[in-house]
Amino acid sequence: MKIPKSHPRHDSLVRRERLVRAWRAGIVVPEGLIAHGRGEAWDYLLGEGSSAPALVAEKAAAAHLVAAKRPVISVNGNVAALAAREVIRLAKAIPAEVEVNLFHRSERRVRDIARILRSADGRRRVTIRGPRPDARIPGLESRRALCHRDGMFRADVVLVPLEDGDRAEALVNMGKTVISIDLNPLSRTSQRASIPIVDELSRAVLNIERFVRDLRRDREEARRMADEYERAGNLRATFSFLDWRLSVLSRKPRRRPRRKRRTHVK
Amino acid sequence: MKIPKSHPRHDSLVRRERLVRAWRAGIVVPEGLIAHGRGEAWDYLLGEGSSAPALVAEKAAAAHLVAAKRPVISVNGNVAALAAREVIRLAKAIPAEVEVNLFHRSERRVRDIARILRSADGRRRVTIRGPRPDARIPGLESRRALCHRDGMFRADVVLVPLEDGDRAEALVNMGKTVISIDLNPLSRTSQRASIPIVDELSRAVLNIERFVRDLRRDREEARRMADEYERAGNLRATFSFLDWRLSVLSRKPRRRPRRKRRTHVK
Repeated sequence: MKIPKSHPRHDSLVRRERLVRAWRAGIVVPEGLIAHGRGEAWDYLLGEGSSAPALVAEKAAAAHLVAAKRPVISVNGNVAALAAREVIRLAKAIPAEVEVNLFHRSERRVRDIARILRSADGRRRVTIRGPRPDARIPGLESRRALCHRDGMFRADVVLVPLEDGDRAEALVNMGKTVISIDLNPLSRTSQRASIPIVDELSRAVLNIERFVRDLRRDREEARRMADEYERAGNLRATFSFLDWRLSVLSRKPRRRPRRKRRTHVK
Repeated sequence: MKIPKSHPRHDSLVRRERLVRAWRAGIVVPEGLIAHGRGEAWDYLLGEGSSAPALVAEKAAAAHLVAAKRPVISVNGNVAALAAREVIRLAKAIPAEVEVNLFHRSERRVRDIARILRSADGRRRVTIRGPRPDARIPGLESRRALCHRDGMFRADVVLVPLEDGDRAEALVNMGKTVISIDLNPLSRTSQRASIPIVDELSRAVLNIERFVRDLRRDREEARRMADEYERAGNLRATFSFLDWRLSVLSRKPRRRPRRKRRTHVK
């Protein structure tokens, strides 16, 4: 289906199509489609744009990524389907490594996702891990704990887009600075992350990349951003924004539904 | 996966599993999984219970269904997966006919859904239409317009759970009383329906059935409910409720994430 550029919800519909295609290719699981729907609802509430508090969190995230010794970006099926190229660009800009981490893990899906990332990285400059994990995240069950010793396990700063709450929390408990991207400000991931970014994946990754490029040239500003970012205040600002959005949406003028009532209760 | 009854989000997780199973059986399409996710996000915001304004709309819906000459309940893949039995019980209580109407229509899926409904109707007392449509809803394109002359086409009151905005609007334009069930109060379906019910499908259908049984015995009360229901006021009350919920959710006490920060921006 061709979606006209002029459609008011063009970006959202393109993302939906991309995800369904990735699901057909076995990259995305059905639970990933449902999770994407939850994100769509939140993004609609947020106005499908990056809010001011999201931009602040994205700049703080960039500051931490630039200063990190071993930054790692985690990628799952939905992330690969929606923003493989953007993630690779960000990994180059930082520079950071990329690791495939799946909630519904199958080795085949890990390999397929790693392949998508590699083909997004034309000149093979980014380290992409995933297959053959050799370490475990403490506190997680079964295959969900699997990771790489030289990747996620030893990372100091991890960017976890669309992450599950348990894993986000387990990574925080390992002492890492955990940067989440999750449209739901009430999710356990957003509640547990060190720097929760409440924004849509592609927008967030593009914004972080832009801030990374700025802050690499201006370490003074990077330090200031990292110092001034205040997690609780940022989440409060997000809720104020949502509150305002809800009031705008519920007041917006609407055509009255045309109806010629035929039924009467007698 | 067995979900313990004590889990705080038990019902929501059971529904999600049921839907994924129906998707495996070819009853639900991937777009249906994404739509379900949107519903999950709204239901979480609403507190996963029927709000007071939802109950008012459900009672008004029951009053109109009881008084209708030709009431029809529309069923799609998600509805069949989540509430086939509840829909059949409601159809018997009114009594109403049931018609399968799909947004992503394939004749095979129509037949499969009709079969699920028939097996939920042990003693075959409900008329279930779907295969071999013989009429079109004006103003809709392609296969989305297909319906039955003696069913949806000539109905005076239609209950359309989880309906697409275009079709809800087209049915309103035909002069029908359109009762929608949709967790998103801002969706085009909720905005266009004569009686928008902002509640989760199974809860809404069970509530309407209960009200139908009450109002069949008390026509006076049925008339009062239908007269007193005020669409715009009911939607305003829904938004006030959401607003309150958001303020509660954003204030709820949270454990501070345990974090031993390792990174410093120098």
